[in-house]
Amino acid sequence: MDQTTAKWRVFELSFQGPREGNPFTEVSFCADFIHGEDSQRIGGFYDGDGVFRIRFLPQREGEWHYRTHSSAPALDGLCGAFLCTPPEPGSHGPVGVLDTFHFAHRDGTPFYPFGTTCYAWAHQNAALREQTLCTLGRSGFNKIRMCVFPKSYDYNRAEPECYPFAGSPQEGFDFTRPNPAFYQNLEDCIARLGELGIQADLILFHPYDRWGFATMGRQADMRYLRYLAARLAAFPNIWWAMANEYDLTEKSPGDWEALGSLLQEYDPYRHLCSIHNWGKFYDHGRPWITHCSIQRVDFYKTTENTTLWRQEYQKPVVVDECAYEGNINHCWGNITPQEMTRRFWEGVLRGGYVSHGETYVHPRDILWWSHGGELHGESPARIAFLRRLVESLPAPLSPAEEPAWSTDYYWDMTCGVIGEEVYLFYFGGYQPAFRVFDLPRGKRYRARLIDTWNMTDEELPGTHEGNFRLELPGRQYMAVLFLQDEA
Amino acid sequence: MDQTTAKWRVFELSFQGPREGNPFTEVSFCADFIHGEDSQRIGGFYDGDGVFRIRFLPQREGEWHYRTHSSAPALDGLCGAFLCTPPEPGSHGPVGVLDTFHFAHRDGTPFYPFGTTCYAWAHQNAALREQTLCTLGRSGFNKIRMCVFPKSYDYNRAEPECYPFAGSPQEGFDFTRPNPAFYQNLEDCIARLGELGIQADLILFHPYDRWGFATMGRQADMRYLRYLAARLAAFPNIWWAMANEYDLTEKSPGDWEALGSLLQEYDPYRHLCSIHNWGKFYDHGRPWITHCSIQRVDFYKTTENTTLWRQEYQKPVVVDECAYEGNINHCWGNITPQEMTRRFWEGVLRGGYVSHGETYVHPRDILWWSHGGELHGESPARIAFLRRLVESLPAPLSPAEEPAWSTDYYWDMTCGVIGEEVYLFYFGGYQPAFRVFDLPRGKRYRARLIDTWNMTDEELPGTHEGNFRLELPGRQYMAVLFLQDEA
Repeated sequence: MDQTTAKWRVFELSFQGPREGNPFTEVSFCADFIHGEDSQRIGGFYDGDGVFRIRFLPQREGEWHYRTHSSAPALDGLCGAFLCTPPEPGSHGPVGVLDTFHFAHRDGTPFYPFGTTCYAWAHQNAALREQTLCTLGRSGFNKIRMCVFPKSYDYNRAEPECYPFAGSPQEGFDFTRPNPAFYQNLEDCIARLGELGIQADLILFHPYDRWGFATMGRQADMRYLRYLAARLAAFPNIWWAMANEYDLTEKSPGDWEALGSLLQEYDPYRHLCSIHNWGKFYDHGRPWITHCSIQRVDFYKTTENTTLWRQEYQKPVVVDECAYEGNINHCWGNITPQEMTRRFWEGVLRGGYVSHGETYVHPRDILWWSHGGELHGESPARIAFLRRLVESLPAPLSPAEEPAWSTDYYWDMTCGVIGEEVYLFYFGGYQPAFRVFDLPRGKRYRARLIDTWNMTDEELPGTHEGNFRLELPGRQYMAVLFLQDEA
Repeated sequence: MDQTTAKWRVFELSFQGPREGNPFTEVSFCADFIHGEDSQRIGGFYDGDGVFRIRFLPQREGEWHYRTHSSAPALDGLCGAFLCTPPEPGSHGPVGVLDTFHFAHRDGTPFYPFGTTCYAWAHQNAALREQTLCTLGRSGFNKIRMCVFPKSYDYNRAEPECYPFAGSPQEGFDFTRPNPAFYQNLEDCIARLGELGIQADLILFHPYDRWGFATMGRQADMRYLRYLAARLAAFPNIWWAMANEYDLTEKSPGDWEALGSLLQEYDPYRHLCSIHNWGKFYDHGRPWITHCSIQRVDFYKTTENTTLWRQEYQKPVVVDECAYEGNINHCWGNITPQEMTRRFWEGVLRGGYVSHGETYVHPRDILWWSHGGELHGESPARIAFLRRLVESLPAPLSPAEEPAWSTDYYWDMTCGVIGEEVYLFYFGGYQPAFRVFDLPRGKRYRARLIDTWNMTDEELPGTHEGNFRLELPGRQYMAVLFLQDEA
């Protein structure tokens, strides 16, 4: 056996091939990877300097054989084999949809997205990228929204270090020639995130552009997706986000449908795929869309709508923009840490997922939401507290439905449940001094009083059943967790 | 001339009449009041002990003559005259609708309702009633929601001091015999409110009943309204609230239409008249309804909907229940003082009006919202601060519309305007460190920075015009007022 690789690790082959002409467009290159009766055709890509690569993510243990196919004789008919060993500890494979509304890795390990947003962090200088990774490693976030293309917008006026295509702003860009150095950096960022256990929710198109990358035309968009998939699809921690704010771009619904379907074809692993709105939601029911990536469309009511969106689309709901903790001028970037945290609780208890962002005014305009760097806010610690709580529960939460024995019970409390085993009540900005609860008859529950802001979690004495009153501290941001007593 | 009374003061006549049988139902009694060619027929009422009264609110100065009509010979054909003198200082007459969305007294003095809620204060003991009046006199509230009938509900389980009809809970009530003592107390309460400049927004029916007053039947309801109108309509500070939470009562839409129209007929002064919802709004477009008295129907978004409700009904919008400051178990009664204040600002800047309530847990269950007594909360001072600001402006506020020179300008700020003369921006729970404003070209504005929570109002140096940036303190609950510079 030539080589060995672990299941769910990138297996990469590289070969010398032709340099003349435009190897990006003029040389076809792929390989078949074969394991018994299982055969997968995997696209390769040109990485500059005459180097052609193929990346493959093996998802079965045992012996794999491969054979290349190319229009270039030097790259055609190359054969080899490798042994796929069991996954390394902590390696669970790509994330997919679980039970309609939730997520799990390929090995069945549940994945609860607690994401953040650093759109342009990969385009910043090396020192800032290192700081971002260091911050992420200490945070509780396990997903990050980030753009392939650089960003041109308020607070984002600097030129990126490197461009995705050959050329420059002065001379223009050649969309037929990707810039290998740009992608090598992007891959390094994605791999480093993978080491931290963080999913890269990679935004493929977005409207905030001054270089022409948002308006390359259908043919160039298709070549770009093919190249991107060949380079990146083998990374286990990739999620595809077709667009940020698709409805602010110049692409038509027909464009999105074509590009979405094409990406499915190019991606042999069928990574998660979403498309994010500015105003009007895309039809998240489309087959190439695996989950809803939502920007709130109401100024006041955001993740509280999670239940409705779940019902409408019957897919996982990730509220990727419900405004950010910060103090910039734009309303989407100046909510308090308390409100950011509250929006997480409202979404998560309804069986959805929520993303963080941070936009505090900074003397050198380094805002976490776009550039990464340091976190300055107070919500990340609270979000991590919620994540630990959710991960300690036996299964994902669902929004409570009115119990048969009561009416109007849940209307003034947010409640997430796991069957009749777990009830997690949350009072948000309200400040009750007590509440009356009404749990399923004939079952006994232990109770925990949780201060979601001060991050305390206190076991209350005794057990509770049926209809009972519980004293509460009369302050905001409290939750009560009832766990069925197994005794 | 027999007597003298000031315009917009209650003129009362009383006579001895028959006591036998049931004088409430068996004796008809009214009078015509004549001033030149103006003649008004005013219903009288039996006040017990053989006393019959007629109350009249003169709205024209000069000489008035009257002549009674009755089925009882002793009460028929009694004549007299009085001189109506100019109104006393501070007496402006009943409140009516001004310019579709606002309110003014009969003499044109604008009235901006900043109301509170003490449903059952008139049914409490004398000491508590005095304390309520004392508290109201020191507060900034100028309207109070209060019930005629006693209330049976959480925190309201005590028997009232007195009942509106003859009888008792044990023996039952005779709906043909109002209890004069009950009404004498109610009238005293209303008169005392009037002395404080407070409008009595009197709730005529409500569902929280254990004595049968909510289910007397159409005939008894009609007699009740006739009696009530005869006793109370002459009070200048009366507003009729046909129902609190009409949709929780057993009355049908037909009942409400009949009772609403009847009250119009019985009320010669056409006081303001509304009907308040629990869930579904009544059709506020009905002709007997002068303004919308709204309970918010969404758990999160309340007075932010004021603009929509104005558009829909084309009448003044008073959000009489958007939840109360407090810490009781029910979600409608445990918002923070900051949130109560914020809801006022959101409603008022959209050209609506908002009512306060307070529901803090109390060792003897004396909650302002129902019993009156003392205010314990922190929002009343802030509401009074807002009232002073609004009353200092040259006209009522309207919600800002998108200016022609800009798009998406107002979507993330709340803004109330008076033509192009006044712009009042509010950032609510958001905490911007600066904002860019865009005011009409060619006009100059002075600016004031207002901290709506800390109640500071600071004139900023210089003047502003067109598109400009303003530094803000990066904390919640800030407003900026721009006033056109006359210089």
